[in-house]
Amino acid sequence: MRILITGAGGMIGRKLTEALLSLDVIGGPHGGPIDHIDLVDVVASPIDDDRITGHVADLADGPILEDMAARDPDIVFHLAGVVSGEAEQDFGKGMRVNLDGSRRLFDALRDRPSVPRVVFTSSIAVFGAPFPPSISDDFHLTPLTSYGMQKAAAEMVLADYTRRGFFDGIGIRLPTITVRPGKPNAAASGFFSSIIREPLAGERVELPVSRDVRHTHASPRSAVGFLLHAAALDGEIVGPRRNLTMPGVSVTVGEQIEALVRAAGPDVADLIMDNPDPFVADIVAGWPQRFTTDRADQLGFTCETSFDEIVQAHIDDEQSRGADHVT
Amino acid sequence: MRILITGAGGMIGRKLTEALLSLDVIGGPHGGPIDHIDLVDVVASPIDDDRITGHVADLADGPILEDMAARDPDIVFHLAGVVSGEAEQDFGKGMRVNLDGSRRLFDALRDRPSVPRVVFTSSIAVFGAPFPPSISDDFHLTPLTSYGMQKAAAEMVLADYTRRGFFDGIGIRLPTITVRPGKPNAAASGFFSSIIREPLAGERVELPVSRDVRHTHASPRSAVGFLLHAAALDGEIVGPRRNLTMPGVSVTVGEQIEALVRAAGPDVADLIMDNPDPFVADIVAGWPQRFTTDRADQLGFTCETSFDEIVQAHIDDEQSRGADHVT
Repeated sequence: MRILITGAGGMIGRKLTEALLSLDVIGGPHGGPIDHIDLVDVVASPIDDDRITGHVADLADGPILEDMAARDPDIVFHLAGVVSGEAEQDFGKGMRVNLDGSRRLFDALRDRPSVPRVVFTSSIAVFGAPFPPSISDDFHLTPLTSYGMQKAAAEMVLADYTRRGFFDGIGIRLPTITVRPGKPNAAASGFFSSIIREPLAGERVELPVSRDVRHTHASPRSAVGFLLHAAALDGEIVGPRRNLTMPGVSVTVGEQIEALVRAAGPDVADLIMDNPDPFVADIVAGWPQRFTTDRADQLGFTCETSFDEIVQAHIDDEQSRGADHVT
Repeated sequence: MRILITGAGGMIGRKLTEALLSLDVIGGPHGGPIDHIDLVDVVASPIDDDRITGHVADLADGPILEDMAARDPDIVFHLAGVVSGEAEQDFGKGMRVNLDGSRRLFDALRDRPSVPRVVFTSSIAVFGAPFPPSISDDFHLTPLTSYGMQKAAAEMVLADYTRRGFFDGIGIRLPTITVRPGKPNAAASGFFSSIIREPLAGERVELPVSRDVRHTHASPRSAVGFLLHAAALDGEIVGPRRNLTMPGVSVTVGEQIEALVRAAGPDVADLIMDNPDPFVADIVAGWPQRFTTDRADQLGFTCETSFDEIVQAHIDDEQSRGADHVT
């Protein structure tokens, strides 16, 4: 069977590719032995394997999506997208890639002889404040960013195309992925990872928000696990509500730091310097803090159950790797 | 000030046009004396007035939307759409008109010197079963028709375009409009109106569902009232959640018939013949029964409070009119 991954060059895309190569076989109604994986991204994937064909292309340009659909993939992982900050700053680009690009891919997959599984990475950015204490599976979508709007609209299209039998879609709303490997970035959420990653590497780091800020996290390893589990799910069991909030670990920043100390000793906490930044604090105040993910839980999606496990996943997955793998 | 109405040739569009002509002035931050109304539809409006210009055009073709936006309307009523049954049968047409047509209109209104109020008629079809006993303002959108998906996706775009300041949008989710004037039609919901309209006109009518079926209704007069109220609302008070479920009267079919008897006497009920149709009953079983519309109520949207008032609105508005007005 054939797999297509869009956005394959990103952090999750690369980890997913590696996981698929190590699996060899994928289960479920769309699964089978993995014969071939097409990778599409604006940047080339560094992963080399004789089952892989890499395609460097922009989803918003040319016939790449139609070409990929014509290869009749059995499973499509649609990870490609313009990230939140860029979609907010460059509105046209976000619409072209995140909404129109997704729709073009979905349309290209419509008229194929097979009915592929399409796993779409949505985001908790489909939710917008004010929130209840915990966001349940039937809470409405009121995004407060253009990125969130694009993901929410694509979710609607995915569910209807699935209902009509055009393909067999599953949308998964990822929580914040922590600890992201690599260098600090400019994302407002970057500190959630850097306050763990940098001290573990012996580096000092600034904390721009109060230690009582609560947020929900899952490891990169769990994100890959969500994708693989979604790929193998039986759509009949899922039913018509195809967009699912993924589980995560809801902790305060203070609890993150306590887990870090348990993993690496008390001295490491001295590398974290409180330096409140009202701009970052304001953005973070609008984000969801906690989810109740009954549907995903019942469907067998799993992740870490404590932030200690998330810290350990980072140590296991990244500290043993070469520096060129963690950028 | 200028007004644009898309879908002006439909039942609600014509009643709205008449109401605007009788009002002369519209309130709120986008309001003022009504100088001109552009009407767009695939059918010509029968209404003639020197403040009106009619345009017969299909939203999915040609530059009609861009031409209309270039006239710099202060208030846009975007009522045009392919109805639920047709959007389900002709998927491409529904996407072109309901989703892409709405987006093209929204995009055309983006770069205007003024920031118009855009009132968009969404639908309770954005909701899909299973439902709680009453659907609250924060219940999620899980449409089970392509029509509902197209309305839900357009709602997302409308809210984000409003957040970005491209225009000042309000989406209103209309309940079933009862009593629809005119001839019976093929819509699965048609019996909700025909069991009132036909007996009042001395005609026999078949009832395809059980009398304990519950549904939510508002009169055509209330629908026009919702549109006018939405046109005049202060967006600052509405806040970022721009799509609102409108109030209605939740009654069983049996309660509808009791109200009919109170208005027209016991003999009229003998014209209603129970003739269960499992096909219609199945469709209706998937529809929402009741809504809790706190936000719309707080923002001042009002409608009838009993089905007796809905029957009386029909008698007042339609029985006094010539037959050529009620088709």
